[in-house]
Amino acid sequence: MNRISEYSAMAEAGIRALEFPDGNLTGLYAPISYGMQAGGKRLRPTLLLMTADAFGGCPEKAIQPAAGIEMFHNFTLLHDDVMDNSDLRRGRPTVHSKWDENTAILSGDTMLTLATKLISDVEDAVLRPVLDTFNDQALRVYEGQRLDMDFETKEEVGIDEYIDMIKAKTGALLGGAAKIGALIGGASEEDAEKMYEFGLMLGVAFQIEDDYLDTFGNAETFGKPIGGDINNNKKTFLMVKALAGGGSNAEALKAAMKMAAGPTKVKTVTRIYEAMGMPAVSKAEVAAYSSKALAAIKKTSLSDDRRDAFRKLIEKLTTRTK
Amino acid sequence: MNRISEYSAMAEAGIRALEFPDGNLTGLYAPISYGMQAGGKRLRPTLLLMTADAFGGCPEKAIQPAAGIEMFHNFTLLHDDVMDNSDLRRGRPTVHSKWDENTAILSGDTMLTLATKLISDVEDAVLRPVLDTFNDQALRVYEGQRLDMDFETKEEVGIDEYIDMIKAKTGALLGGAAKIGALIGGASEEDAEKMYEFGLMLGVAFQIEDDYLDTFGNAETFGKPIGGDINNNKKTFLMVKALAGGGSNAEALKAAMKMAAGPTKVKTVTRIYEAMGMPAVSKAEVAAYSSKALAAIKKTSLSDDRRDAFRKLIEKLTTRTK
Repeated sequence: MNRISEYSAMAEAGIRALEFPDGNLTGLYAPISYGMQAGGKRLRPTLLLMTADAFGGCPEKAIQPAAGIEMFHNFTLLHDDVMDNSDLRRGRPTVHSKWDENTAILSGDTMLTLATKLISDVEDAVLRPVLDTFNDQALRVYEGQRLDMDFETKEEVGIDEYIDMIKAKTGALLGGAAKIGALIGGASEEDAEKMYEFGLMLGVAFQIEDDYLDTFGNAETFGKPIGGDINNNKKTFLMVKALAGGGSNAEALKAAMKMAAGPTKVKTVTRIYEAMGMPAVSKAEVAAYSSKALAAIKKTSLSDDRRDAFRKLIEKLTTRTK
Repeated sequence: MNRISEYSAMAEAGIRALEFPDGNLTGLYAPISYGMQAGGKRLRPTLLLMTADAFGGCPEKAIQPAAGIEMFHNFTLLHDDVMDNSDLRRGRPTVHSKWDENTAILSGDTMLTLATKLISDVEDAVLRPVLDTFNDQALRVYEGQRLDMDFETKEEVGIDEYIDMIKAKTGALLGGAAKIGALIGGASEEDAEKMYEFGLMLGVAFQIEDDYLDTFGNAETFGKPIGGDINNNKKTFLMVKALAGGGSNAEALKAAMKMAAGPTKVKTVTRIYEAMGMPAVSKAEVAAYSSKALAAIKKTSLSDDRRDAFRKLIEKLTTRTK
């Protein structure tokens, strides 16, 4: 058993070892290499490797699928950046702003097929369940992205709708990573399902924390400007929950949403959130989903030592500053 | 053994039988259903079913993979239409013009995963080679599309470069369809490879014929305006071959390429092609690749009857008017 940092180093090394064609195909593959080398937390491949190891699989055998799950994640970021017209990602120009939109579309498509290839690099005995898990969770991610896009023009979004959306958009892939790792590691079907549940709940906790950090994080450690969600009137956990609270604060929030983007808007909305006690509400929700994730782990056949490693992962992700 | 029209009817029925989620996910799946119901030749699934049957497989068992290969093809059309900014496809508004560009990107991504799922709906014994064939040929399609895009800004494109591009962009998927059909049908590895070669060469013949029809076809039967390629200065077989011919005609062609799009430009370029004897050159090239396709079939273990069915397919595709 390794420390989390060792699994993520293994994931990083696997990603860095990927090779792409060059020559007259540089136009297709250079943007992919660029996207993959951007760093980031490597959370999904780390979780996949950790889970494979936890169930007794040799983590080396899971490195290609781990790189594949990160490739898939980066493909979704690449296309999301086109759809959101975002110019920066992790402090660097996005693919469509460094190259062009058509390149981002086509190289993104290529990443999805490359991801499928990498994820299929498993023993024949588990190919079918691994592939089915990947494809089904990929569909959930697109469905989540569609719902998120639809929320932009929707006046009222219920908290249940919001949770369903982030389960699909963020939770499904973490669930898929954990389940695929479990399958590769030789887990029983029951254990693999519990690991899916773990990843799903961890994903919800992770996303609510992400929404929190976008408003209440520290600009220096968070890596992107604070208040981006507020300026875009994004239906985050904070926004959905605050609007659902009703009363004068919710009315003030609706008025603030009509303000022009800028520091004044960010400050105004942040103060309303604070007045409504949203930081504590958000923390409580993160804690609730962390507990659900932990409960899923406790239902597996894993030893206490192994369970503790996953508990540490929850802790690491929900107390992060970036 | 069935007639070609019976295989294509079977493919059509399989595609029409696909069901998609609705409710709050209509925004994701309605554009997919719209794209899939647009009709078209259903060439790729027809070829897949025909090949599965030819090698003794039950064609019913190949219907889902056949629908999957058409789903993949339609996904590439959907994203190509975004990249080319095309408003019409088969006489109907394209997805990005009927909905919007973000919808076309996201629903297209979804189609690629759905295609992978459908193509994986085969017996475990052939899952690995079927999936590998699909993924590898999908990559070739993206590579071909990239090269085609790069040709737009390239002053000179050699005829070999052009053939390599259409082998990737068009041939690879036809090769993949034939090979997947063969694998499902229980063909030997050698026969499956010959069928790939057949599809690849058929694809080249098909594409050169397509380029020809875009200039010399009949507007009524071709289904789209004649001369679109000329107006876009597209590096088609006719253009590449004519420019490679050199001399005063090639110079006249270069001058004509600078003309504004419109009927005069189309007429001018068409006359230069005619003066250079391009219709006959094009027909000869189609015939040459048809022969290569037929030669591949002759190397298989198929009976003469079965071979004849593929010969008829070549004939049908290279003497078409649409």
